[in-house]
Amino acid sequence: MSKFTLSVLVENKFGVLARVAGLFSARGYNIDSLSVSATEDASMSRMTMVVDSDERILEQIKKQLNKLIDVIKVIDLTAKKYIDRELVLVNVKMSGQNKQKIIQAVDSVGARVLDVGKETITIEETGDAAKVNALIELLRPFGITEVVRTGRIVIQTEDEKKEETPDGKDLL
Amino acid sequence: MSKFTLSVLVENKFGVLARVAGLFSARGYNIDSLSVSATEDASMSRMTMVVDSDERILEQIKKQLNKLIDVIKVIDLTAKKYIDRELVLVNVKMSGQNKQKIIQAVDSVGARVLDVGKETITIEETGDAAKVNALIELLRPFGITEVVRTGRIVIQTEDEKKEETPDGKDLL
Repeated sequence: MSKFTLSVLVENKFGVLARVAGLFSARGYNIDSLSVSATEDASMSRMTMVVDSDERILEQIKKQLNKLIDVIKVIDLTAKKYIDRELVLVNVKMSGQNKQKIIQAVDSVGARVLDVGKETITIEETGDAAKVNALIELLRPFGITEVVRTGRIVIQTEDEKKEETPDGKDLL
Repeated sequence: MSKFTLSVLVENKFGVLARVAGLFSARGYNIDSLSVSATEDASMSRMTMVVDSDERILEQIKKQLNKLIDVIKVIDLTAKKYIDRELVLVNVKMSGQNKQKIIQAVDSVGARVLDVGKETITIEETGDAAKVNALIELLRPFGITEVVRTGRIVIQTEDEKKEETPDGKDLL
């Protein structure tokens, strides 16, 4: 079992989410995380899903998704060049003693403090799943009271081949 | 119609997403955006959903969600103190002429350049929906080729009342 990332462009129509979720549920496919949101075109939504699967099941999932009438495009990003990012918000218990230690820890990994209350400090970070997991482990000893994650989203960057000129010279 | 944000804590069990999506679909409720991801406790997932609704329908939705067996807690954040954030990744067409202009525009709003290819520049920003929409409008004239958004997530911050000491003095 590996984690695969699918980017699915769907018509922004009523009931699409239920049909996609139903497809996964009826066949016993597991979704690790899911983000659904608008795109630059209001008539379409994009679902980014991380699926814990093997290659054979993944091929089935892609085939089934492509059969759904409201699915415009299924992109399997596994072999593509892409950037993946996730956003996490974390609440940590705070006392006078550990406030500075928490802020130093947050700074040291490039995360940001969003809010400082009397008993709680709220922290934000963006990064890939490994970076987000590392932040959570870093903060755990202080006492985490809440973690909210968006789940992974991905954007394709240029293919390696585009980095070359037609005569093979590197322009960079 | 207004936009309401619900944070729904669910058992991390097979088919929960399908049941929640089915509930919305069967009753004609609209979901604006949805994020589903793990929490600090592996046995639970959190769904953050933005619903375009009126107050009466929202009350129905909350009641129906609470009836689902795998739903642990439904938090309506509308009247709570919270921070909302969204992550967006944007690909913009780039040429030698406009590269610097794009980078300047990105810097001016505090967004970040993640990747610079031959023909495409990839940009990341976190913020509330208004900030994310403003970035998209700022970049649109350059030629956006892709927008991927996580949808909104929210984290509760301390209530106002916690900001006061018992005798009403402000400690800050």
